[in-house]
Order: sequence, then structure tokens, then C-alpha cells
Amino acid sequence: MSRLSLNQWTTRPLSVTEAVDACVRHEIPSIGLWRDHVAAHGLSATAALVRSAGLRVSSLCRGGFFNRPGWLDDNRRAIEEAAALEAACLVLVPGGLEGKDLAGAREQVATALATLVPYASEQGVWLAVEPMHPMYCADRGVISTLGQALDVAPPEVGVVVDSFHVWWDPDVLPQIARAGSRIASFQLSDFLDPLPADVLLGRAMMGDGVISFGPLVAAVEAAGYTGDVEVEIFNADVWAADPDEVLVTMKSRFSTLVR
Amino acid sequence: MSRLSLNQWTTRPLSVTEAVDACVRHEIPSIGLWRDHVAAHGLSATAALVRSAGLRVSSLCRGGFFNRPGWLDDNRRAIEEAAALEAACLVLVPGGLEGKDLAGAREQVATALATLVPYASEQGVWLAVEPMHPMYCADRGVISTLGQALDVAPPEVGVVVDSFHVWWDPDVLPQIARAGSRIASFQLSDFLDPLPADVLLGRAMMGDGVISFGPLVAAVEAAGYTGDVEVEIFNADVWAADPDEVLVTMKSRFSTLVR
Repeated sequence: MSRLSLNQWTTRPLSVTEAVDACVRHEIPSIGLWRDHVAAHGLSATAALVRSAGLRVSSLCRGGFFNRPGWLDDNRRAIEEAAALEAACLVLVPGGLEGKDLAGAREQVATALATLVPYASEQGVWLAVEPMHPMYCADRGVISTLGQALDVAPPEVGVVVDSFHVWWDPDVLPQIARAGSRIASFQLSDFLDPLPADVLLGRAMMGDGVISFGPLVAAVEAAGYTGDVEVEIFNADVWAADPDEVLVTMKSRFSTLVR
Repeated sequence: MSRLSLNQWTTRPLSVTEAVDACVRHEIPSIGLWRDHVAAHGLSATAALVRSAGLRVSSLCRGGFFNRPGWLDDNRRAIEEAAALEAACLVLVPGGLEGKDLAGAREQVATALATLVPYASEQGVWLAVEPMHPMYCADRGVISTLGQALDVAPPEVGVVVDSFHVWWDPDVLPQIARAGSRIASFQLSDFLDPLPADVLLGRAMMGDGVISFGPLVAAVEAAGYTGDVEVEIFNADVWAADPDEVLVTMKSRFSTLVR
């Protein structure tokens, strides 16, 4: 429980102040922040708030979307924000397809990551590319497996292991072992069956979907990861629920299913 | 065009008689039949009808669902039906999860395939296991990549290469080469972006989604596949359209995007 982190989108309706207060109230020692929430509160004010609350920042979500105009400037700003927040890493969502050139889009991710490494290094920020479930390949992330993320990213760039994105992958356990010290973030949510109409919201609280967390958790531990473990759930029912109840459930499920 | 096949679910509202007539009318030399349509028309009557129409049967869809009670008897019947229809192969949809034991479900597929091989061989039927898009891993098919299908299935069992299921896979081209003479069926449809509310219906006519067909077609050809190429589309708009228009579009797209 000393490594549990609340990813801010799990309690998306809460402001930065409310989410930080909720972490303190529920003795959750770490938070994964989102750039839009941070911007609404102010970057310096957020950095001061989390520090005074004694919270770690397990990640800043998110840079990436290398297929969008202005991606370079936007990612440089994201790196600066991650540095100001002393986030353990900056999560990068690769972005989907423009047109139908999947191979080209994947090359563009490799190029963009290599382009960003020097500035991230200068700012002391660990970039973490997130392989995404293949159902998002067209619209959100052309990097579809952990193995591919490790192949595409320069060695200075870490990877995000998100249970929702990788649970189906027949090669995931050996690839987690291969990732080793490149695991920059470990995120948890469950996979709903059936999926909702908007597949972006196909995540659920651990235990409410089909994922067996034990093997993934054991593999990430065995790979040497000692960072925080974020719970990141995009789910309309979770967002509509009482945030205090969500956090109570989250801690309970974490203690029974993860540790 | 001499290898084009109409998978019967592309024109799902049509009976066997209507679908066979449509193939003849549009000079489509091959058809992929579905068991429920065949049962409605009668097995022997269907076999006689397609033979008298001069059509090849590129596949019978489908056996599998090895997680369901009665799977063994059902698959033995499917093998007998494929034999009676002289289908080029029997497509096997692996089935999803019962509970959360993904590794166990995958072992069950391997066991089931090995169990079915002797009877299929006796009946002269080529079994073809279909790796399915990972968004169907929970509810429909726990075999998620072509590479995994080749690993799990005994060498006597072929594989289905379906563009919709495999297009996102960073390893698909080498795995098609590896599959070689084990490619028992090549099926085409496009991947919609955004997906519809029911992701089972996320397929589209070639050209209406995000897939580049050229590399897949070239790889399947290079692997030595000389069988029919089925167009299999699950799409509510396609089902609601005039079937003659669907087939005209299908031939046109096939000639521009595939050959």
C-alpha cells in the first residue's frame, strides 16, 4: 500500500486540490497527474501543493500524439511540466493513424522519441512510451505491444506497463522481463466484458473485469520495478460515483488482488 | 477475380439459395458458407446446390468455441458438414474466457485442436484456427496473434489470415511468411475508425477503413497461398444495403485494392 498511486483520471471530476486532499485523507502516498487538471490549477501551484501534502508524483499524463500538428512544442512543454512537478516519468501516448500508413506512423513514433530524448535528459525527465491495446491502433496509439515499444524506443526511454493494454498479449510476461529497468510506470485497471459503446471507457476497477493481475504483478516485481503502482480507470460509472467510495474500493481491491 | 469468394455473412440476410444465385449472377466463383444458413437450407441440398452452380466452397464457418459445453460433439458435426460440402477448410473460432484464466483457456484451445485432428483427417477436412483481434480476447477468441496460432496449433491445423484481426500486429508480415503452407484461408475486411457501439460489427468494405491491404496481400502471396480470397464483412449498413450493390462494390474494391 506504500506504493499505491491514484491516477487522477480515476477521479476525473476532482480538481487537483480535491484529488490531493482525497489522497491525503485516504493515506494514498502518490498521485499520477494529468496536464489539463494541472493547467487548471497552475503548474507552480500544483507543484507546491503536492509537495506540501507529502505526495510523490508517480507520472505526468501525458505527452505524445506524434501525429498531431505542433507535437514537438507540445511535448517540450510537457517535459518542462514533468520536471517542475518532479514526476517519476512523463507518459507518452504514441498517437494513431493519419491516413492508412501504419508502418510510416510507427517510424514517426521512433523518430519523435529520439528527437525528444536530449531535451528530456536536460530537464531530468524520464520519458515513458505506452503501448496501447490494439483496438486503439487506429485512433490513439500505433505502438501495440510491449515488445514493440522496447524495439521502437531508444534505450533512454522507458515503457509503461498498463494491465488494460497488455493483458491479452501472449508474449507479455517475457517482454516484462526483457523490459527490466526500463519499466517507468506500472498502471492498473481491469478490462470490461462486454465493452461499453465507447471503447475508451472499457476499463474497470480491478476485479470487475477479466484480468488475472497476479501474473502481471509478479512479472513486474521480478523485473525489478520498485516504483509506484497507479490505478488508472476510465469508466463513466466510476466517474459518477462518490470519489471517497471509489478510493475505499480501490484500496480494498489493491490489497486483495495486487498485493 | 478468379479467386474471389463471397463469405456468406457479408450478405447475411440472404439465404443459401439467394447467396449462391448472387455469386452466379456476379460471376463470383467461390463462397464461404455459414453453418446456420446451411442448416436452414439442409446440408445435402446445400452441397448439391453449390456443386450444380459450379461454385467452390472456400470455407465453412465455423467450429471452435472450445470453452462451451458440448464443444466436442459440435465440432465433430462441423467437421462432417465441412466434408459434405467439400469446403477448403473449417474455420475455428477459439472461444473466449470463462472466468479469468487466460493461460488455461489457451491451453484448452491447444488440447481441443489436438483432439480434433484425427477425426478431421479421417473426414478429409482441413481445420483452420483463426487468431482474433485482441479486443475479442475475453468474449470470442483467446488466440490473439498469428504467431500464437502457429505456436498453439498442431502442424496439421492451418490458420486463417483475416485482415481485420491481424492488421495492427507489428509481427504480422514475418508470421505470414512463417505460416507458409499452413495458410488455409485468407479473409478480407477493413477496420472501422471509430468503432461502432457493437465492436463485433467494426468491419467494413475494403477501402472504408484504415487498413493498407497491399502489404498483407503481397505477404500472403509470397507465402505461397493460392486459395480463394474471401470477403467477410460484419457491418449493419452492409447488411441493410441492396445485396447486388454490395457485390458490385466488393468486386470493384477487390480489383483496385487487392489485385
